[in-house]
Amino acid sequence: MGSTCVRIAIDAMGGDHAPGEIVAGALRAKEELGVKVLLVGDPQQIEAALPPKTNLEQVEIVPAEEAIAMDEEPLNAVRRKRKASINVAMDLVKHQKADAVFSAGHSGAAMASALLRLGRLPGIDRPAIGTVFPTIIAGKPVLILDVGANVDCRPKFLEQFAVMGSIYSQYVLGTPEPKIGLLNIGEEDTKGNEVALRAHQLLRENSQITFTGNAEGRDVLSGQFDVIVCDGFVGNVLLKFAEAVGEVILQILREELPQGLHGQIGTAILKPNLKRVKQRMDHAEHGGALLLGVDGVCFIGHGSSQAPSIFNAIRMAKESVDNQVLQRLRSQYEILQQESS
Amino acid sequence: MGSTCVRIAIDAMGGDHAPGEIVAGALRAKEELGVKVLLVGDPQQIEAALPPKTNLEQVEIVPAEEAIAMDEEPLNAVRRKRKASINVAMDLVKHQKADAVFSAGHSGAAMASALLRLGRLPGIDRPAIGTVFPTIIAGKPVLILDVGANVDCRPKFLEQFAVMGSIYSQYVLGTPEPKIGLLNIGEEDTKGNEVALRAHQLLRENSQITFTGNAEGRDVLSGQFDVIVCDGFVGNVLLKFAEAVGEVILQILREELPQGLHGQIGTAILKPNLKRVKQRMDHAEHGGALLLGVDGVCFIGHGSSQAPSIFNAIRMAKESVDNQVLQRLRSQYEILQQESS
Repeated sequence: MGSTCVRIAIDAMGGDHAPGEIVAGALRAKEELGVKVLLVGDPQQIEAALPPKTNLEQVEIVPAEEAIAMDEEPLNAVRRKRKASINVAMDLVKHQKADAVFSAGHSGAAMASALLRLGRLPGIDRPAIGTVFPTIIAGKPVLILDVGANVDCRPKFLEQFAVMGSIYSQYVLGTPEPKIGLLNIGEEDTKGNEVALRAHQLLRENSQITFTGNAEGRDVLSGQFDVIVCDGFVGNVLLKFAEAVGEVILQILREELPQGLHGQIGTAILKPNLKRVKQRMDHAEHGGALLLGVDGVCFIGHGSSQAPSIFNAIRMAKESVDNQVLQRLRSQYEILQQESS
Repeated sequence: MGSTCVRIAIDAMGGDHAPGEIVAGALRAKEELGVKVLLVGDPQQIEAALPPKTNLEQVEIVPAEEAIAMDEEPLNAVRRKRKASINVAMDLVKHQKADAVFSAGHSGAAMASALLRLGRLPGIDRPAIGTVFPTIIAGKPVLILDVGANVDCRPKFLEQFAVMGSIYSQYVLGTPEPKIGLLNIGEEDTKGNEVALRAHQLLRENSQITFTGNAEGRDVLSGQFDVIVCDGFVGNVLLKFAEAVGEVILQILREELPQGLHGQIGTAILKPNLKRVKQRMDHAEHGGALLLGVDGVCFIGHGSSQAPSIFNAIRMAKESVDNQVLQRLRSQYEILQQESS
């Protein structure tokens, strides 16, 4: 295609607000980040979602006949609907017509499609879903993985997550020497279930990463860790709890602050400051989740994603490509192979 | 002892603020709740912590020669220090000189002491630690268990937690028909790891409880569930995360709200309302954690507990005794035995 700018394949049919918000986020990313966007899906619906005077330079519509619904069983759906938008988008990456893929659709389907079409990176048993949480320190996020791909993890999977997370944190999130933590129920080395105990040992012995020990639930948002690894069961519970707790607290603020006349006056005065509070708590500001361990740059967004989240996820995808995350993950494996041979 | 009021054995030496705050919380409980408090520990230190004109009616000091420090290995410490305050307090319950025990000391030691001195309830394989979270619905808390006693749980342990939690929720928290949830990574029956899948089935088939299905991380604070069961690993991570997240958000509020002149004015006006926000988010308002499954009423508090938390935990302990939680748990087992014979 001769393009030197980063090309992002976007599943325009995935998500609760598809294609409208997806297209809007993609167009903003094209304008502000200079990426080329490949909008994959039903051309008619995508065209209808484009604002009338859209500059179509750097925008390509790639037709896909089908889409996978949120309630479909992912592996079956991905196999049966070969021309589904998520599959077509993955194929663009596979055939080097795109550098990264983004979908806010069925995340299980995105995972299955990535595995089937792109395969795993060498040395990785199981890909993980990583997501970035804000911490108490402004501008210092923490990457948590896995947040849902693998409900039962062997210790070595957690070790692989740590190595991948470390590279991502360093080259995309810009952490000079990422501090890696193992999510656990106590600080002491002897704490935890069997998987955690063994994983602790593997992480301690791994020279590719800076392992700083166990991270308890209270440490997740402390900013002391740059990457925290856990199995997909606890990670998923934590992610969904964290997303909800922000909402719960905003709700409590909305209920309690405006009470009484002084409450109404005070709340009105504080409006801009409260907006900043909301922003700092907002998970969407930090982009989507990423699939680490498949042989391609894949980002997935919340089903409820709107244009700003889409934009942020595309930004992260571009930065992953710019910073050669995939190449670095591959070469990390080669170094390991050489060391062990 | 001939007393008809509820007698609470209190480990006066346990916790970061022992004995001062422990004694203060206990005395308030004595005054306001009409309980008898048995303060267990070093008599000299306890007496020094009593305010000069304390009415010593309904207060008894029970000497204990030793105390268990926070960094001791619990089982060893409990066995070695036979006269430790937590052991003496447990013995008061064992010998029916007290109706319940409270400690803000080493929670592992309290657990070990309870198991060794009081034993398990019939039909219970593993006791669990339960704790009450506030939800988005004011006045409608949710009981989560286990939050740390058992890092690896078999499905039937989770089922036992559900039955115990249901009784506690009904008779102490006053929920007419407690809705039980299983912490999991999806709403669908087919989601989760192996333990969750099997536990789901057991809960579904159990006629003693009202099982309403899987609870995701986002449902924990929704108020839709009255009791949520999980293994002690994920429960502990969740508990510690939840405790910290409140702090993080209060910190963000403290940083952002008073910014600028309008921020300072607005924050000053809103002071009483912000205090209510803090209260609704405050875990301490809801008392300590409880040990469910040991043959005695045992409450444990955070190491950092101060008088208000101690008071609340004693209140919950009294309500547990008043409402015959232990007897109900025992008879539940007898019903089961009869049904299966």
